[in-house]
Amino acid sequence: MSESHEKYMLRAIELAREGMESNDGGPFGCVVVKDGEIIGEGNNRVTSTNDPTAHAEVVAIRNACEALGAFQLDGCTIYTSCEPCPMCLGAIYWARPARVFYAGTQSDAAEAGFDDAHIYRELEKPNDERQRPMINLLREEAREVFAAWIEKLDKTEY
Amino acid sequence: MSESHEKYMLRAIELAREGMESNDGGPFGCVVVKDGEIIGEGNNRVTSTNDPTAHAEVVAIRNACEALGAFQLDGCTIYTSCEPCPMCLGAIYWARPARVFYAGTQSDAAEAGFDDAHIYRELEKPNDERQRPMINLLREEAREVFAAWIEKLDKTEY
Repeated sequence: MSESHEKYMLRAIELAREGMESNDGGPFGCVVVKDGEIIGEGNNRVTSTNDPTAHAEVVAIRNACEALGAFQLDGCTIYTSCEPCPMCLGAIYWARPARVFYAGTQSDAAEAGFDDAHIYRELEKPNDERQRPMINLLREEAREVFAAWIEKLDKTEY
Repeated sequence: MSESHEKYMLRAIELAREGMESNDGGPFGCVVVKDGEIIGEGNNRVTSTNDPTAHAEVVAIRNACEALGAFQLDGCTIYTSCEPCPMCLGAIYWARPARVFYAGTQSDAAEAGFDDAHIYRELEKPNDERQRPMINLLREEAREVFAAWIEKLDKTEY
């Protein structure tokens, strides 16, 4: 069993290297596995596609969900070549896989110039203490839409 | 000036309502503004596109970056109909807009059934204390790719 975990992780690391070498983006790769099959793959494509959200995990999750025709990764395992940044960890929580294997650590990534630690620290702060200003406006108008959602009969929850 | 902030936020809230009514997904909308112009828009499309990452902010950031032909939102302002979840806040930090306005709060969203608070709490924990297991594997193999990135001469940093 641990041999197959290593096999999938080696594929994630191979995707990281290939994506780096072809200048898709940073050196990060990810695969999603269900019932022993790789159902989704991704590598970082931020700089080549002008998409700051195109991290390996986000690309692989989108790819796997498309393959499954579902917006959740029930019973899946994610293998990512590096410990996820806050955006990707949030995406993983929304996608709800069973578990996550990661290879490189946050500190390995930071040594290579990818410092997510400041984002983790910012997320822990209240809105008004963050470096990036976050300002509340028109809350009541937004609450009216939430009230309509609560009343909506034909909604799909997620 | 505050009138135009309200105008952009009302557009974000309108996108939230329209997306909900057309069953694109949850009741969330977002616009990205640069130099007084809306350059990107988005609404939640999770359930209609089977993409758990298709939150309003992610969709709007991708849309705005495509319009700019850039992977950062320098000098832009984001107006989102609801306080961002951890995934979207991470995406905002990577996109680097100047500031963020939000309308509904986390607690308003939670009342409507969208509870991000548990994700915020999970992110603050060390890997081995999270509900979703995160397991380290093949760290040295991943570090070799980071070492190659550090040495790479033709890389685009982000």
